[in-house]
Amino acid sequence: MAKVSTGAASTVGPVLIVGTGLIGTSIALALRERDVEVWLSDPSPVTLALASDMGAGTPIGPDISSAQAEEPTLVVVAAPPDLVGGLVVESLLRFSTSIVTDVASVKQTVVSDVVELIQDESVLARFVGSHPMAGRERSGASSAHGDLFYGRPWVIVPMASSSPEAIRTVRNLAVDVGATPLELDAGEHDQAVAMVSHVPQLVSSLLAARLTDASGEALSLAGQGLRDTTRIASSDPRLWTAIIAGNSKPVAGILSALQEDLAELVDRLGDEERVPGLSIAAGAAGVVSRVITEGNKGVSRIPGKHGGAPSRWSEIEVLVPDRPGALGRLFTELGAVGVSIEDLNLEHAGGRPVGIARIMVAPDKAEEAVGHLEELGWSVAHRESQ
Amino acid sequence: MAKVSTGAASTVGPVLIVGTGLIGTSIALALRERDVEVWLSDPSPVTLALASDMGAGTPIGPDISSAQAEEPTLVVVAAPPDLVGGLVVESLLRFSTSIVTDVASVKQTVVSDVVELIQDESVLARFVGSHPMAGRERSGASSAHGDLFYGRPWVIVPMASSSPEAIRTVRNLAVDVGATPLELDAGEHDQAVAMVSHVPQLVSSLLAARLTDASGEALSLAGQGLRDTTRIASSDPRLWTAIIAGNSKPVAGILSALQEDLAELVDRLGDEERVPGLSIAAGAAGVVSRVITEGNKGVSRIPGKHGGAPSRWSEIEVLVPDRPGALGRLFTELGAVGVSIEDLNLEHAGGRPVGIARIMVAPDKAEEAVGHLEELGWSVAHRESQ
Repeated sequence: MAKVSTGAASTVGPVLIVGTGLIGTSIALALRERDVEVWLSDPSPVTLALASDMGAGTPIGPDISSAQAEEPTLVVVAAPPDLVGGLVVESLLRFSTSIVTDVASVKQTVVSDVVELIQDESVLARFVGSHPMAGRERSGASSAHGDLFYGRPWVIVPMASSSPEAIRTVRNLAVDVGATPLELDAGEHDQAVAMVSHVPQLVSSLLAARLTDASGEALSLAGQGLRDTTRIASSDPRLWTAIIAGNSKPVAGILSALQEDLAELVDRLGDEERVPGLSIAAGAAGVVSRVITEGNKGVSRIPGKHGGAPSRWSEIEVLVPDRPGALGRLFTELGAVGVSIEDLNLEHAGGRPVGIARIMVAPDKAEEAVGHLEELGWSVAHRESQ
Repeated sequence: MAKVSTGAASTVGPVLIVGTGLIGTSIALALRERDVEVWLSDPSPVTLALASDMGAGTPIGPDISSAQAEEPTLVVVAAPPDLVGGLVVESLLRFSTSIVTDVASVKQTVVSDVVELIQDESVLARFVGSHPMAGRERSGASSAHGDLFYGRPWVIVPMASSSPEAIRTVRNLAVDVGATPLELDAGEHDQAVAMVSHVPQLVSSLLAARLTDASGEALSLAGQGLRDTTRIASSDPRLWTAIIAGNSKPVAGILSALQEDLAELVDRLGDEERVPGLSIAAGAAGVVSRVITEGNKGVSRIPGKHGGAPSRWSEIEVLVPDRPGALGRLFTELGAVGVSIEDLNLEHAGGRPVGIARIMVAPDKAEEAVGHLEELGWSVAHRESQ
């Protein structure tokens, strides 16, 4: 497979990366792959050495005040969220011509910190915030790779004071590392990530926290539904605490609305009055039905592949024996009839040396694929559903 | 690949399936594959004809009172949850020797309904409740297949009055359709499924319901985390309303605990008092950190593959071009070096003709696999994480 990055980069180096964690080091690696000169700075000597050893660029020391005389064209502040504002200000003051951006997951607090400390419009003109939507479940340079941003949205958050050149420079950076840039203002951005990222994180964690009380028997019945809903609950507490505490208002707003729905549900489900003969709490059925139906509506709004409208596809389930090469054979045989896989998911069959591969394919290809697989002896089921 | 079911079935027919939806028809198909005689009954003529056309067995009419004189050895009541109790009673009274089981997702209400209407211990001896843990997101005979229960837990819920023969018969049924039987009492079962199934369903629906208010811009930023946490929110409202309303007490108990954690979170996040200079609500960081940390603990308790303790694995990320055969080539090449895939997940790269395959492999195989794939020109990243 060809490398992602081809052709000349639009970004002109040297680029200074401040903070060589997952995001900073990944940006550095992506730029190095396109032969852009990269300088690295991080307060931890070990972290800095690791990034440098990975080929991310040239270390210039623990902080930007120790940087050599020459100015970078672009400074990318990739520090923990609560330190970003200060480092952006420091970068704007330390260098007199460099464009400065940050990659923090929350934007309003960064903007507030910066405008509180810098009033000079000509200095502010060099700053544009941004947020690459990638790499949320892990952290650290050791997890970095140059393809991290490939195909992901990269939100650019210009201020009224940001110069067109600064905006263009950050946009070029996003494109050079393979991301898809889009512009939002800081408030819109923070509201959006509260909904699609911060609230799902907290809800997943709140749900997973309940498992600390569960019996071993209960856990042995866990299926794919529980696994999916709690997967992101294994995220890093330190990182997420900083992110969510920095976006507390939008997050609290959405959680309050959820809290109202939950309160009604708990009230009705806990109601002691039963429907005679049915062992159902009075009123519970109505509120449960409404919650599930509203959930149906909400989930149908999530865009499908390639950012388009939600697409209908056909699902094929195939039993796959748990041994090397079995999945390979399956996909090779699908490829042989020209079937492209829209989505896939491997479900384990607890206690058995077998898995169930759920494969989403274009509806017009499904029947052919199923027929072909069955002919070859696979155990297949086919469904028409979203 | 060989068919799942091999060797003679322990179940002796005829087996009467009452209700030919997803579960009933799937049991019927699995038994037919092993040459067990199956009779089918369903109040909907269309549903019944569909199941029969799929090869699930011989239709005997809309209800069991219309059944021919001969008695089935086993009656499996696979009706909607709120009708199960009545149909179990009807089956026990209509037939004088048949063992009767049901497959409802909630057990305490069924047991209560049955003992309320039947006091004769010799009749109750023929009843054993059960619950195959499968097929939650879809419904209807058209989604049925004989492999639905393969490798899934099948909970058997004997009453004090249940005869050893009745318990053995239901256990044989579970084994014959490929499931792994385990015994719980009705209360333990209902508490367990509230935790691993009903509460995750409601939490996912509550979260997805918030998306009805979200902007299109926000939704365009949706990533894998939101998709995973809301996948089961597309479940059938009618089915789930009946399930959850029938298990309201255990569900309400767990949701109340979650509600307390949520209330504290919303209070602290909504707090107007800020940490000076940090734009963080006073106290918010502590409660967020606690929620995420408790979530870490909870999710680590979910058993890994094959029902064992949670296992550590190595994750390999590979960029996969979006064209037929690409995944096949990837897995074939992994199979060629003897690498067995523990888990996999295909993540879409929004707006790009490419996906990222996340593959979990045994840690001792990861390095070899990465080296091999890189040699062959794949773009690969490797992480050591859970």
